[in-house]
Amino acid sequence: MASQAVTPQSQDFSKWYNEIVYKADLASQSPVRGCIIIKPYGYEVWEAIKAGLDRRFKETGHQNAYFPLFIPQSYLQREAEHVEGFSPELAVVTHAGGKKLEEPYVVRPTSETIIGESFSQWIQSYRDLPLLINQWANVVRWELRTRPFLRTTEFLWQEGHTAHATAEEAQAETMQMLEVYAEFCREDAAIPVVKGQKSNIEKFAGALRTYSIEAMMRDKKALQSGTSHNLGQNFAKAFDIKYLSRDNVEEYCWTTSWGVSTRLVGAVVMAHGDDQGLRLPPKLAPIQVVAVPVYKNDDERAPVLDAVQRIVAELKAAGIRVHVDDRDERPGFKFNDWEMRGVPVRLEIGPKDVQNDKAVLARRDIPGRDGKQFIAQAGIVAAVRDLLADIHDNMLAQATTFREQNTHEISTYEQFQGIVADGGWAIGWWAGNDDDERRVKDETGATLRCFPLDQPDGAGQCFFTGQAAERVAIFSKAY
Amino acid sequence: MASQAVTPQSQDFSKWYNEIVYKADLASQSPVRGCIIIKPYGYEVWEAIKAGLDRRFKETGHQNAYFPLFIPQSYLQREAEHVEGFSPELAVVTHAGGKKLEEPYVVRPTSETIIGESFSQWIQSYRDLPLLINQWANVVRWELRTRPFLRTTEFLWQEGHTAHATAEEAQAETMQMLEVYAEFCREDAAIPVVKGQKSNIEKFAGALRTYSIEAMMRDKKALQSGTSHNLGQNFAKAFDIKYLSRDNVEEYCWTTSWGVSTRLVGAVVMAHGDDQGLRLPPKLAPIQVVAVPVYKNDDERAPVLDAVQRIVAELKAAGIRVHVDDRDERPGFKFNDWEMRGVPVRLEIGPKDVQNDKAVLARRDIPGRDGKQFIAQAGIVAAVRDLLADIHDNMLAQATTFREQNTHEISTYEQFQGIVADGGWAIGWWAGNDDDERRVKDETGATLRCFPLDQPDGAGQCFFTGQAAERVAIFSKAY
Repeated sequence: MASQAVTPQSQDFSKWYNEIVYKADLASQSPVRGCIIIKPYGYEVWEAIKAGLDRRFKETGHQNAYFPLFIPQSYLQREAEHVEGFSPELAVVTHAGGKKLEEPYVVRPTSETIIGESFSQWIQSYRDLPLLINQWANVVRWELRTRPFLRTTEFLWQEGHTAHATAEEAQAETMQMLEVYAEFCREDAAIPVVKGQKSNIEKFAGALRTYSIEAMMRDKKALQSGTSHNLGQNFAKAFDIKYLSRDNVEEYCWTTSWGVSTRLVGAVVMAHGDDQGLRLPPKLAPIQVVAVPVYKNDDERAPVLDAVQRIVAELKAAGIRVHVDDRDERPGFKFNDWEMRGVPVRLEIGPKDVQNDKAVLARRDIPGRDGKQFIAQAGIVAAVRDLLADIHDNMLAQATTFREQNTHEISTYEQFQGIVADGGWAIGWWAGNDDDERRVKDETGATLRCFPLDQPDGAGQCFFTGQAAERVAIFSKAY
Repeated sequence: MASQAVTPQSQDFSKWYNEIVYKADLASQSPVRGCIIIKPYGYEVWEAIKAGLDRRFKETGHQNAYFPLFIPQSYLQREAEHVEGFSPELAVVTHAGGKKLEEPYVVRPTSETIIGESFSQWIQSYRDLPLLINQWANVVRWELRTRPFLRTTEFLWQEGHTAHATAEEAQAETMQMLEVYAEFCREDAAIPVVKGQKSNIEKFAGALRTYSIEAMMRDKKALQSGTSHNLGQNFAKAFDIKYLSRDNVEEYCWTTSWGVSTRLVGAVVMAHGDDQGLRLPPKLAPIQVVAVPVYKNDDERAPVLDAVQRIVAELKAAGIRVHVDDRDERPGFKFNDWEMRGVPVRLEIGPKDVQNDKAVLARRDIPGRDGKQFIAQAGIVAAVRDLLADIHDNMLAQATTFREQNTHEISTYEQFQGIVADGGWAIGWWAGNDDDERRVKDETGATLRCFPLDQPDGAGQCFFTGQAAERVAIFSKAY
């Protein structure tokens, strides 16, 4: 519970981020390398993210299941690219029950392999398809550099795994789940994202095609916030996932996988936060409205608290998440504290408001007087509901404008370097190969974030190679 | 999706159990030692269990958080009894990121130690107390003998961890959470449980006092279905969990922990199931009502399906979980299949029902004609709601009667041995010491399940030692 000032974003964004995570009480440090402890306030944001996604997964016909944490080491080796991609990051259990294991177990870095093995047993005929499974789980990747929420050794995530009869259906599923992620970000997290395809060198180890949603953070860097992979028949062949078709022919399935993680909590922090602290989108905020009673002495205190309790009861009954701050602290301290914690709406009630049946609503997304309104207590539920919806819309609009202002079309490498140096996304025609892409990264620090699905008509000239290019790509520094 | 007969309970209960778990599609086997895969149908039961518990935890003021999967090996050693209790069961990560670790990590068997370490940092003064945390997580215990859901190497659970200023508050929390578990079992799982205290040798490694809820399975054995521990100051002293009191004195906290796991899915199977398969209590059933259209030919098919779809839409709109079985199979096959899967209510509609605006509701808890009723389609939502409530009450009553009929008061060791040999719970005065308790276990296979909280007045004579005894204990064979 801290209300000290934080380092301004403009001064040191990275420091700002770390301070917010700990001061807003989202997480605390842990004794385990690269792991954080997700504190209740941060975990509630994750619970809201889970609820919003889980509902959408179920609406699109997916079912949850749970697979083992441990994966026999030999499983990872069955898909060549997959094992190469994940080997450097694995945590390995070599001893258990007081004995050395004959075959070590790997702590899952992702579950394509063990789920692939199950699918091969569960699927017999075309009648078993599509098989649409999701898992909420913890995974472990021994990353070299870690940052709270954005990249931790252990993280929480969901991983969808599906099997289909045809290549077309697998591709449709891959794109559907990408859109589910984009919709969630837009509608629940108030984050606009670009949907696009990853380049060859950025795709998932073992995938045919990887798609991602990319969001712009307040430092103008990109954060890959979710991925959806068309795995083709790679895992089906490695794990013998076959079905008997209507024509009684044995065929390999086409599979997909897709995931988002607690990284989304970091996305929310970095896409919306400001120098006063967190700004939480209303749908994900553990506390949507904080009620602060304002009084000078005991005579004023009782009627003010009475009014607050009555209004809070009404809001709660309407399903709004409200908290009363009745701590023995000055209002100014409380205001700062809740700004730090990103609560979307502050409800103030003082003795005058009690007399006039009024209240003050102050919104976190618009600072100062402009964000304050006096309203009648009678219509407060409707007023708060409308205000929360409006805050969501405004936060999404602010983030969209910010992204648009900081996304630049470029046609030469010189322009490109200027944009990357200043900060922002560069979008331009691209026809480079893997080596060209690596060279751009080495020279500028920017990576090819994606080929946006939304492409301009026609064709152009690659800003790097000068060759004819059929697609534009977005490049940026990224997390 | 199987409808073959299962081994009768009376013939081989253990075999019956395993067959039900796999044939009712709750789980499938996995390539990892002692681990199962929880399939969607089983996972939905677990999701309903989680939802019912999580709501109650939040209503009693607890907040969820998430702590690391890995625990530094040295942490476990700080509480002497704790490390002794868990050492034989640990899985150990010795290598990660391609290197040997300097200090190995243990995969959490439970999180008292790492949470204790956090509590010592989070708690400063009496104002931070009580601290009421819960975690939903996976844990790993390398058990010698495993059985699906009942005892698996990895399992899913929740672990509550709380810290308090006084011994009294910690004890009150311990008892409150025991009652939360008992209430959940009664109200959501339709399982009556006995609340009681564990004996010294059965208590949790590191606890001052352990309490449990014990349920009787259909083979008359006991299943410990949840535990609540008063940890006294043991972990507070081991992890330096201190607070500054109102009087400005540094004091150790008093802590508790409490947990239930996916074992509860096994409890539901074994407390309610019969020779036709699962019987799911309505509140935990993924499908509460299965609608089976009954027709002989295509002329009959269309109007029957129309009526089914209309009724199903009504039930869904009322929040009832309904599934339509429109597979191209005979009704008899479908009836058996859904009985196996334990769906509480079957809704049948045939051509005559369509004509008469009627439907048939058949309940899983009462077999044959007695469990069938013809009802008017007009009032179907209310009828189904009432029926689901009645099924819950009846299942709870059936389980309670079964337990009462198979619980026997005994006053001599000879009677005791007879009861244990025949199957059932024996309840009698007990004043034995740890060695006596072990001898009873060695000689009869029965363990002291608990000293029930609900004790008779007065005192009696120990059935084993003949000494004066102040408490009765329940003994039984157990899982």
